[in-house]
Amino acid sequence: MIDTHGMMERIGQKARAAARILAAIDGKARNLALARMAEQLLADREALQAANALDLAAAQANGLQPAMIDRLRLTDQGIQAMADGVREVAALPDPVGEITEMKPRPNGMLVGRMRVPLGVIGIIYESRPNVTADAAALCVKSGNAVILRGGSEAIHSNRAIAQRLALGLSAAGLPADAVQFIDTTDRAAVGALLQCDRHVDIIIPRGGKGLIRRVMEESRIPVIKHLDGICHTYVDRYADLEMAEALTFNGKMQRTGVCNATETLLVHQAVAAEFLPRVCRLLSEAGCELRGCDQTRALVGESAPVAPVGAEDYDTEYLDAILAIRVVATLDEALTHIETHSSRHTETIVTRDHPRAMRFLREVDSSAVMVNASTRFNDGFQFGLGAEMGISTDKLHVRGPVGLEGLTCLKYIVLGDGQLRQ
Amino acid sequence: MIDTHGMMERIGQKARAAARILAAIDGKARNLALARMAEQLLADREALQAANALDLAAAQANGLQPAMIDRLRLTDQGIQAMADGVREVAALPDPVGEITEMKPRPNGMLVGRMRVPLGVIGIIYESRPNVTADAAALCVKSGNAVILRGGSEAIHSNRAIAQRLALGLSAAGLPADAVQFIDTTDRAAVGALLQCDRHVDIIIPRGGKGLIRRVMEESRIPVIKHLDGICHTYVDRYADLEMAEALTFNGKMQRTGVCNATETLLVHQAVAAEFLPRVCRLLSEAGCELRGCDQTRALVGESAPVAPVGAEDYDTEYLDAILAIRVVATLDEALTHIETHSSRHTETIVTRDHPRAMRFLREVDSSAVMVNASTRFNDGFQFGLGAEMGISTDKLHVRGPVGLEGLTCLKYIVLGDGQLRQ
Repeated sequence: MIDTHGMMERIGQKARAAARILAAIDGKARNLALARMAEQLLADREALQAANALDLAAAQANGLQPAMIDRLRLTDQGIQAMADGVREVAALPDPVGEITEMKPRPNGMLVGRMRVPLGVIGIIYESRPNVTADAAALCVKSGNAVILRGGSEAIHSNRAIAQRLALGLSAAGLPADAVQFIDTTDRAAVGALLQCDRHVDIIIPRGGKGLIRRVMEESRIPVIKHLDGICHTYVDRYADLEMAEALTFNGKMQRTGVCNATETLLVHQAVAAEFLPRVCRLLSEAGCELRGCDQTRALVGESAPVAPVGAEDYDTEYLDAILAIRVVATLDEALTHIETHSSRHTETIVTRDHPRAMRFLREVDSSAVMVNASTRFNDGFQFGLGAEMGISTDKLHVRGPVGLEGLTCLKYIVLGDGQLRQ
Repeated sequence: MIDTHGMMERIGQKARAAARILAAIDGKARNLALARMAEQLLADREALQAANALDLAAAQANGLQPAMIDRLRLTDQGIQAMADGVREVAALPDPVGEITEMKPRPNGMLVGRMRVPLGVIGIIYESRPNVTADAAALCVKSGNAVILRGGSEAIHSNRAIAQRLALGLSAAGLPADAVQFIDTTDRAAVGALLQCDRHVDIIIPRGGKGLIRRVMEESRIPVIKHLDGICHTYVDRYADLEMAEALTFNGKMQRTGVCNATETLLVHQAVAAEFLPRVCRLLSEAGCELRGCDQTRALVGESAPVAPVGAEDYDTEYLDAILAIRVVATLDEALTHIETHSSRHTETIVTRDHPRAMRFLREVDSSAVMVNASTRFNDGFQFGLGAEMGISTDKLHVRGPVGLEGLTCLKYIVLGDGQLRQ
């Protein structure tokens, strides 16, 4: 049996020491390391694929579904994309060291804030091995050390990738310990990581709900997580109905298995009779299953099949081509529905009315609130942040896409010339 | 026996409903409520003192120390100061609704962020009843509802104050449930509050280490806390020694029982022989007990009594007129000492050397890092934030003084005109 706590203590100590160095160097040195990491991945393409072959063989032997096996596979193209991703992260603006809000106090000292790395980040992820490189690149770019714990089905691939990343760090003269990989499939190692609060500053789980729940329950370290995405598109009485149709269709159908897809459509009763039959026909013809309130079903009639909504529908993240629909009498009723059923991920209003748009923006309490835009835009790349670690539905520290800024924090700095407190 | 979980569920639901209203109204309405709250405290001065008399009588019967009883007492002046404090919070700039960083994306939609309240804040505090009003005022100003849980020794005073605050809210036409008081001394109520993650967004403990540890262990809700303040003053080889003497004395002795007092003095060996005898004499004459490394003791000699530093001293928050002293060979050694022993609260360097000052600023990982200023300045009022909830030594969300901004978060907002994701 492995002493997982002892192992994590050693990994954590080394990560802490590496983090101190990464935080102290300048952005150029971190970018050089990212360049070397990308080169190393490309140079060892064959070794990565050989390691990947072991995971693929095990997956086949274990009867994994073809779609899952596909996600595991490291193709030539996939390795190129992984290296390109590391280079793209290097090209992002340096988030570290920015000094803001320096203001003089009456006694003459300047008080402001400096953006600094969080320190050591633990990332627990499942399935796709490219996360190993993506996550490590974001952490190194933002001056953090990272401890990676991937899924057991990808352990050979993840280990091989992490080794190349560490080699890249060494080649750039930085501590290889800034990217460490927990090299065991022992589930106890996850528990040990979650208890390692002396050396790990933050945990980011990337994976299914089971993983995230376990992390939330066991972690003694603060967690940046995202759980469900039960996102709403609200078509207001003053909506441009053509736009509303396009936004509903895009929000629901552009990609269905993702957290920012629309799961519930709310429609103001004043436009429901005109809007619902056509949007439902369009969705239904595209293969979307519809589940509506009584009013929806009555209004849609023969235009499209709409099943009655069940007790759970408004609280379900379908992650599939299924849409719940409800007619609301007022904007207030829409806001109350969202307050009650939203997972605080993404909501959008379709309206031409400025006061109603502003009210929706102010009062909806979600990580992203939109006017006349598709819910599918809540994403780091779409928001211009570059790559992301996930989309946080927490309120503390970072809401919405977790990009480089989310991996940093602000400390106060004070520049004085001998000021004393009276 | 009280059903504490049922009670907390009801309190939490009412707080959530009130929070939604507080977030939706404008700053003027919140300021009006604060004005009414202050008026109500002053109008009911006698009732507050009658309630306070019950706490004082119980404290005397229970043999509480005179200093503790003094902290409990609500004098005329104290009530006036409490009401003035609420008015000062009202006069601060409104932290809610600010929209920043709105930038166009290539597809024409604008993406930025809006500052919004956190929602429902649970505050668990000990001893001084004025915290009831201070904390509630900050929460209402920042558009949050608050659930207050005070110490049992002040329950009559806290209840009376909370009732007046709720009356003030009602008088301003706002829901009284925005300020709720857990009206039981049952310790299980704290546990129930810490489990109430559906309705409470954040917990802020204000009190001793025992309280904070319990909260950290039991809470399922994110916590903004501050634990120890083991703060360092580092006198560099390029320090102005007169300034260094004043800053050391101020950092240690201006007030000793507080978290931003200096607990350890680090002195570069190049100036130790000149600096240490005089600063030690000064401190010793002011009644400060000194505990130094061997080199310190040798250099100070007959100038002042310096006891040998023990194994625990560098890791102890004295909260008293005691100072640990260590001579370091280099700036690096000072940084390593701080990395090892600091509680990440406040550190200051005294130096005239710009590169060394910048290096200290960058590399010391604390909530406030200072150059040529007293550690005692890490404080919401001193930093110009107005009143504070405490000083966070966490890294997530807010580091340093937790003012109004720390009680808010940023959500993304998107203004489009029909953009679809491709």
